[in-house]
Amino acid sequence: MIEISGTTRIFFVIGWPVEQVKAPALFNAYFKKHDLDARVVPLKIEPAAYTNAIRTLMAIENVGGIFVSIPHKPMSVTAVDEVTLRARLAGACNAIYKAADGKTIIGDLIDGEGFVRGLDRTCAETPFNWKQSNALVVGSGGVGCAIAASLASRGIANVSIYDTRTEQAQALQARLQEAFPATKVSIGKPSAEGYDLIVNSTPLGMHPDDPLPLDLTGLSPSCIVSDCGMKIEMTKLLTAAQENGCRIQKGREMMIEQSPLYLELFGWPGVSSDAFRNLGVL
Amino acid sequence: MIEISGTTRIFFVIGWPVEQVKAPALFNAYFKKHDLDARVVPLKIEPAAYTNAIRTLMAIENVGGIFVSIPHKPMSVTAVDEVTLRARLAGACNAIYKAADGKTIIGDLIDGEGFVRGLDRTCAETPFNWKQSNALVVGSGGVGCAIAASLASRGIANVSIYDTRTEQAQALQARLQEAFPATKVSIGKPSAEGYDLIVNSTPLGMHPDDPLPLDLTGLSPSCIVSDCGMKIEMTKLLTAAQENGCRIQKGREMMIEQSPLYLELFGWPGVSSDAFRNLGVL
Repeated sequence: MIEISGTTRIFFVIGWPVEQVKAPALFNAYFKKHDLDARVVPLKIEPAAYTNAIRTLMAIENVGGIFVSIPHKPMSVTAVDEVTLRARLAGACNAIYKAADGKTIIGDLIDGEGFVRGLDRTCAETPFNWKQSNALVVGSGGVGCAIAASLASRGIANVSIYDTRTEQAQALQARLQEAFPATKVSIGKPSAEGYDLIVNSTPLGMHPDDPLPLDLTGLSPSCIVSDCGMKIEMTKLLTAAQENGCRIQKGREMMIEQSPLYLELFGWPGVSSDAFRNLGVL
Repeated sequence: MIEISGTTRIFFVIGWPVEQVKAPALFNAYFKKHDLDARVVPLKIEPAAYTNAIRTLMAIENVGGIFVSIPHKPMSVTAVDEVTLRARLAGACNAIYKAADGKTIIGDLIDGEGFVRGLDRTCAETPFNWKQSNALVVGSGGVGCAIAASLASRGIANVSIYDTRTEQAQALQARLQEAFPATKVSIGKPSAEGYDLIVNSTPLGMHPDDPLPLDLTGLSPSCIVSDCGMKIEMTKLLTAAQENGCRIQKGREMMIEQSPLYLELFGWPGVSSDAFRNLGVL
């Protein structure tokens, strides 16, 4: 096994707090298993120091990229040199890497794409009918935003957004509608009726006593229901959906499916998500 | 074994280049063996970016300290908030850590102390007679400087310095004489005659074809001879000294003996150098 040495390529995961991050365990297990001279290392950086830290760290030759954790995702948009469309739309980055010139610092947001790849897998037997489906995304924060954008970029017919913060939801709706004119983007209600895909991106469900994030009356058994949290594997929402006969997608799928995307941005393209699913870490 | 996670305390080794550094292998082996949630990670930082990088990195909560490698040791003196006497005298730091307040950044130079501790070990059976000994330090660069200062701080009777760069040697002599009035500090000749301790701190001996760093005519069998390089274990100088019946001290001893000093500065006091000697890394 390759141990850390002077030649090791370093990737940081930055958060405040950072103690809870899973990236070191997941990616280092991958690097070790495949004998790659690379490691993910945590850094606990406060918001006031974040932008300067990003500039300093990304200028270091053997630093390949950064996994952005809470609360730095929104701030990353202005800390980097360039942002991708999906990061700009969501106003957040969770991956920072170097362009081919080795200098330009690019910010991307890949959890939405991770979610959509997870959806491809969840629907492996009966493919998701993008052109005729209605999706409801509950929550318009960073993750909800990213998922709604990825659904629209895949060409879903309708995506509705619901958030108790009405103005934030409306702002996201307007941004997405402008960026993806082929999809109808609207403000929805917290109710399952009429949807083919429901995604909960709010923190509701992280605690066992949380109420459901939406009213499940009228939930169709053909609807796919997903929760983005990872703290509890089977949330109330997922349990209820499963009992209703729905296909469900757990929070960990989004992380597992975006792991190869991180590797691709960091210089190792073409890795299958199974390589991460089979590590036994998540 | 504790793997890297969000709670891991990080120590950097910084160099330009950095590929050759041994600190990750040595200290990570120690951390792993003793189940400590800490790792040493290399960063390749160019001189122009160094000072800013030190300030940024040392402000990070879970960064505990820095091993300074070439060519950053002299620059570290102005990059930190405070320097120890031995670092100031040598004009170089090889260890950077946080003071008890968690904020103040301190620079220290511990290879001289590592050398002297190695000397204690080399002389375990027949203790070194500090009060009546004459030492010659060949080379007045960072390491020579540090060793001469440590010999003087231990109260050696006489320490002579030789360097082909006469002015640099004279400047060191003046600084040391002022700081350590109880020791006679003088400019020596590159000749072994009359010395009880000879230390080669020049790069001569790193390559097999290098000439000897000094004339060994008159070398006393009671003299202790040491080489600071680590590239070749038994240099010409050490081989000749050993054949002459002298006790010798290899370059690795300085690194092994200063390893517990690094740990002490970084928050783990009281570790024996045998803990590093027995790791089988160096």
